[in-house]
Amino acid sequence: MESIQHELIIKMILDAWLTSVKRTDDLLNSLSDEKLLEEIAPARNNGVYLLGHLVAIHDRMMTLLGFGKPLYPELFEPFVNKPYQKHIVTPSISDLKEYWKKVNSTLEHCFNETTSQQWFQKHTSVSEEDFVNEPHRNKLNIIISRTNHLEYHRGQLILLKNKL
Amino acid sequence: MESIQHELIIKMILDAWLTSVKRTDDLLNSLSDEKLLEEIAPARNNGVYLLGHLVAIHDRMMTLLGFGKPLYPELFEPFVNKPYQKHIVTPSISDLKEYWKKVNSTLEHCFNETTSQQWFQKHTSVSEEDFVNEPHRNKLNIIISRTNHLEYHRGQLILLKNKL
Repeated sequence: MESIQHELIIKMILDAWLTSVKRTDDLLNSLSDEKLLEEIAPARNNGVYLLGHLVAIHDRMMTLLGFGKPLYPELFEPFVNKPYQKHIVTPSISDLKEYWKKVNSTLEHCFNETTSQQWFQKHTSVSEEDFVNEPHRNKLNIIISRTNHLEYHRGQLILLKNKL
Repeated sequence: MESIQHELIIKMILDAWLTSVKRTDDLLNSLSDEKLLEEIAPARNNGVYLLGHLVAIHDRMMTLLGFGKPLYPELFEPFVNKPYQKHIVTPSISDLKEYWKKVNSTLEHCFNETTSQQWFQKHTSVSEEDFVNEPHRNKLNIIISRTNHLEYHRGQLILLKNKL
């Protein structure tokens, strides 16, 4: 009974991630490049910055989850360490959209290769010592927190839709 | 091993909910009534509507999770069934803030009374027949999806902070 529930609960968490990614895909597909260049609210992040930010944070999950190297490490500086600035030089919007798809599909492939027991292993930014007392700092928890992060920004990106 | 992980994973999901509620609490405490009356972006929901919406959706979890009756069922019509309208008659902001705290503390109390096995029972909007084939439609999944819902709107409410 518990073993079945174990698999089920991992699937529930991964499904929530995939649903959130899919909803963001659909939203991004509905937004023109012109829309993505607009700010979500006056003097706030624009759509391109949020897209780059999401790609960079998802890409960093490759390292955090021990899957391998990030695909586009150069995005971390302009889209995570630095705040949004107008007229910043970035990859083209079509490149960013392609990176978004590539990073998420690579993660999904790695998720499918991960066993139940591996999900309970520590993620790479916690030490072995700390993990003994903080076993919740495992790989699965990264999925929970990054799904929440994605929903937070999806709630912002949607403001670009039907914007006045 | 699996039994320990079982408890751990339920705790991870509940902790993510509590963290998101706490962050929203802190945000709401930092926003004046005047700020909450502002729209998050031009012609979009204002802070009061989003607050009422979150109270109504969280309150409805009482029924969904089989904990009991909602405390403020009258909020569902103006804040969920109906979209945001200017000049709508609603409870006062201080009342809504009190309802927000009351609903979340009542839910937390009920969470603490719920056993691991109860979290895997069906929620009340799925039939016994459907639940046989869709065992993920359990109470725990409501927590995952409502945490994501809260983060989505928290990403919008934060736009009221330091708004130009």
